[in-house]
Amino acid sequence: MIKTGSNELRKDPLLGRWVAVLNRSRTPAEYVLPQPESSETSCILCRGREGEAPKEIMSIKSTCAGASDKDWATRVVPNVDPIFHIEGELGRRGDGMYDKMNSIGANEIIIESPHHNVPPEELGLEQMTKVIITYRERMADLEKDPRMRYTLIYKNSGSDAGAVYSHPISHLASTPVIPKRVKEELDGAKQYFAYKERCIFCDIVSEELRAGSRVSLETKNFLAFCPYASKFPFEVWIMPKNHSCAFQDISPDETEDFALILSSILKKMRKLFSGVSFNYFIHSVPNRMPRKDHWHTLGEDYHWHLEMMPRFLKTSGFEWGSGFYILPTSPEAASKYLREV
Amino acid sequence: MIKTGSNELRKDPLLGRWVAVLNRSRTPAEYVLPQPESSETSCILCRGREGEAPKEIMSIKSTCAGASDKDWATRVVPNVDPIFHIEGELGRRGDGMYDKMNSIGANEIIIESPHHNVPPEELGLEQMTKVIITYRERMADLEKDPRMRYTLIYKNSGSDAGAVYSHPISHLASTPVIPKRVKEELDGAKQYFAYKERCIFCDIVSEELRAGSRVSLETKNFLAFCPYASKFPFEVWIMPKNHSCAFQDISPDETEDFALILSSILKKMRKLFSGVSFNYFIHSVPNRMPRKDHWHTLGEDYHWHLEMMPRFLKTSGFEWGSGFYILPTSPEAASKYLREV
Repeated sequence: MIKTGSNELRKDPLLGRWVAVLNRSRTPAEYVLPQPESSETSCILCRGREGEAPKEIMSIKSTCAGASDKDWATRVVPNVDPIFHIEGELGRRGDGMYDKMNSIGANEIIIESPHHNVPPEELGLEQMTKVIITYRERMADLEKDPRMRYTLIYKNSGSDAGAVYSHPISHLASTPVIPKRVKEELDGAKQYFAYKERCIFCDIVSEELRAGSRVSLETKNFLAFCPYASKFPFEVWIMPKNHSCAFQDISPDETEDFALILSSILKKMRKLFSGVSFNYFIHSVPNRMPRKDHWHTLGEDYHWHLEMMPRFLKTSGFEWGSGFYILPTSPEAASKYLREV
Repeated sequence: MIKTGSNELRKDPLLGRWVAVLNRSRTPAEYVLPQPESSETSCILCRGREGEAPKEIMSIKSTCAGASDKDWATRVVPNVDPIFHIEGELGRRGDGMYDKMNSIGANEIIIESPHHNVPPEELGLEQMTKVIITYRERMADLEKDPRMRYTLIYKNSGSDAGAVYSHPISHLASTPVIPKRVKEELDGAKQYFAYKERCIFCDIVSEELRAGSRVSLETKNFLAFCPYASKFPFEVWIMPKNHSCAFQDISPDETEDFALILSSILKKMRKLFSGVSFNYFIHSVPNRMPRKDHWHTLGEDYHWHLEMMPRFLKTSGFEWGSGFYILPTSPEAASKYLREV
């Protein structure tokens, strides 16, 4: 490792993308990455090893019969080696012709179960509901920090999806900028609204219900479908059927229903592809954007959702150079497999 | 495989991204992909097996001592299983609320050597010059087709970079739309030009020469450097030092110099990381954009370049959900390793 000061965020001058540059610069020899060990039976995220993990941020108590006060169901801790630091000022400044700022933000690990090696599809409905509640509470809490513009909840399951722990976890990253991918969605939704005076996501829900061929599962409040122009085969989006811009506004009734549809899709995915690696993330409206109070601004044209992507395919120079994707299974065929499994 | 009609291009309504949906929809069982076999010693792209490959589009003759008229140095053939088809009309049309068109375009394989298993860094300068000439000739030829808006030349080397052949090849894809990633660059460059009245790429060249810390190699006409906000560690861009919007306008003198800098960077990369997979691609101005004739339009604010990305790191839900990248080695440290190797 070569120390070059503290972590910093740098802005790509051409595309407006941000990157975090780590201060402990990894040497070429350090690029042989350790793979998650499947033979491991316990880690510092397990029940009973709380003392070895970073200090707890929050937890939800276990409601199992016979559980003591110390028994937790889900638990949130800071990243062991955080990329974003919660303390300090943004310090936006120039660097020659470029722009940078301090790497302020939050990196948290959401521990989905006290037990090691539980696959996410086997958490069970009650536990998954607690995971969703944990997501919501952390997002609502971090939204209060005026330096944070966005909180992304995401999950890496399997080594091809970038997972480095075999304990069931999700991740959270709060950033002082609205990430490019989210900004693009906001801009796309805004343009559509300007033309149609309707939320594009609400229109997508209607269109998918009308067409039917890309629907994977429908519950009382949610629709799971393979998007018309998916990036990856068997990509699934889960969207609330009624308009709602912020995931944090989810009601208790919807929370259980969301846990149900997410669990069901994970089970279906696992039945089709036993060892599949996948990612999912939640896209919600950015912080400090008017929601309930100023209904006719951003709340009206954005709609939160979850995007899940199985990671079978290796991206090539074509995808990186063009941003154009090739779909070897059509969304209609993928949806049929998911419906029928 | 399930047949669902012909390949089609679909537009993502939110982000404006296009995807190609293949007609021979792959089933879940078909997602165990064959890996390139390193034990293979010959393939249909080798000299002597020309009859087994698709019909040749062009070739450059060998100038080696004793070479016959039939001996080629580089050769271009259509993809064995093309995603884009050269025949037909675009047929842009609606599909419910969505948009699609026929999968018109070109997919070609640029065979970089008659010999199997030659690593790209060992082609030698003369052969690499012929590869660059082949790139230029194909791009110039495809630009004449009014249906094609863009031609991307790209290379996948190693299975982690999406390579499926062990023969040394590059790829070419001509598309009827300007790919999103290129459009973003054009837009970024245009915005910068509108404010500064200077080409952002020319300014980047000046800034990198001034700072020096991110320069990996400099030749008479080209600069190789690790970009300030790289997506991946050890990412290298090669850019002409003098303003030029179109790769096809490269002079014979510059062609040799470009072959030299590209070969040298490939050798350096291989010395640092012996088995590394990488991608590179060339970004040039889109087809049908005014260049020499109307100097004060697009030609002034765009600048062709090559982007090379080693593929050590697995992208996670964070990158896919945010478009935000984490750089474990700073561009300054990476450049120092590349300079000194």
